[in-house]
Amino acid sequence: MSSSRLLIVKIGGNVIDDRRALQDFLEKFAALPGKKILVHGGGKLASSLSERLGIKVDMVDGRRITDEDTLQVTTMVYAGLTNKTIVSKLQALGCDAVGLSGADGNVIQTMKRPVKEVDYGFVGDVMYDSVNVPNIKKFLDGGFTPVFSAITHNGQGQLLNTNADTIASALAVAMTSIYESTLIYCFEKPGVMRDVTDPQSVIPEMSVTDFERMQKVGTVAAGMIPKLQNAFDALGKGVTGIFIGEASALHLIQNARAGTKIVLKK
Amino acid sequence: MSSSRLLIVKIGGNVIDDRRALQDFLEKFAALPGKKILVHGGGKLASSLSERLGIKVDMVDGRRITDEDTLQVTTMVYAGLTNKTIVSKLQALGCDAVGLSGADGNVIQTMKRPVKEVDYGFVGDVMYDSVNVPNIKKFLDGGFTPVFSAITHNGQGQLLNTNADTIASALAVAMTSIYESTLIYCFEKPGVMRDVTDPQSVIPEMSVTDFERMQKVGTVAAGMIPKLQNAFDALGKGVTGIFIGEASALHLIQNARAGTKIVLKK
Repeated sequence: MSSSRLLIVKIGGNVIDDRRALQDFLEKFAALPGKKILVHGGGKLASSLSERLGIKVDMVDGRRITDEDTLQVTTMVYAGLTNKTIVSKLQALGCDAVGLSGADGNVIQTMKRPVKEVDYGFVGDVMYDSVNVPNIKKFLDGGFTPVFSAITHNGQGQLLNTNADTIASALAVAMTSIYESTLIYCFEKPGVMRDVTDPQSVIPEMSVTDFERMQKVGTVAAGMIPKLQNAFDALGKGVTGIFIGEASALHLIQNARAGTKIVLKK
Repeated sequence: MSSSRLLIVKIGGNVIDDRRALQDFLEKFAALPGKKILVHGGGKLASSLSERLGIKVDMVDGRRITDEDTLQVTTMVYAGLTNKTIVSKLQALGCDAVGLSGADGNVIQTMKRPVKEVDYGFVGDVMYDSVNVPNIKKFLDGGFTPVFSAITHNGQGQLLNTNADTIASALAVAMTSIYESTLIYCFEKPGVMRDVTDPQSVIPEMSVTDFERMQKVGTVAAGMIPKLQNAFDALGKGVTGIFIGEASALHLIQNARAGTKIVLKK
């Protein structure tokens, strides 16, 4: 195990939709020292573009069904406009960013989700060996900061839509084979809160036991549950530190001066 | 000057619009040995998407005016859908492709075209120092095959639309500082023809003198003139070999078994 450190930051969609919040976040991200990776979500642009093009947005249990038209739209928006906008802004801030889909350098190869009760369409599930550590290391060793969109491929020429939170945690876990990796989930909220209406109710440190207790009494927001499951999963697989916090507080989160630190036990 | 060789191939828009022709071309490109770079044009998808979105396509003297909406569309299509589709297909063919806009790794930094009689909008002009040779070398040394879309940036956070033919020749010229570079322009025609209606009239070898003579008598198709000017310019600046030919004959062009070889003099 190398002592070299790697930071993986995931930035959520709501921040991407807000030009000023995005710029503020990117300034803080560019200023972080050392090797780092950014993973970005999609934002609302893909849905609004689909709507303008008359493509039906199909959701089952809050999950988007990705038909061929929808895959084209998400590839255009996530891997194209959003990714290149972020990369050009990071370049202007002196951060030598390189935008990557999973197909670029075959960095993330996924498997099309098998059809069971629901056919999710062109959705790629991350597997235990999805992350191409040697190729990602080449980018990092070259002095580049990889910026991942959530578009992946199956290695057989098919692009696939993938969950950005899952990509971030899979990257953090896989990269532990050569780095001490830290994972930060950034979004528009100040962290995991006891009461979603009260920003003062942020939980500074949260263990699996806390999570299970909160799930039982129903005090975890539904949207937070997969994010927290991803986080605990990554922590159990060797990621050194995991944090959840507000994009605007990115510079404070690693020092536990903002947000929620995820711990296996207290 | 290193003796290491580098091949730069530009593939035109009409081939990109034809799924079968594109697949055939990519198979031939993937099979070429050695270090190589692909530069792709746009195809008609950007125009048809603009139309579907009700964005006016403005042309002055055959050149597109790139307003903010048009820049978003071209970024989505060229740097997103087209670039990632090509990369995923090359990956499936065993070619370790990495898709790049000029912003990625700051590989091509251009200057927004100054407004004179016409305001072309968000169009980037290639400058003598636009190509970032050290960073492109990192990708090549990493075993990657860079795949360039024609979206660039100005280094200050602004994406810009750029001519793909010009990017290809600028790359070929700049890379001569460390490689013996060869440039191939591929499109749907069999080469430079004396008579555009007669595929048998391909000129196997064409010099500046030939070009000037043909221009005088008007036997060069208007669309070929900027391509040929780019080619002669690149040849004068040290590019080892320049060829123009049919995408489906890519494997034959370098050996002068198809297409037109551009030479300074015969």
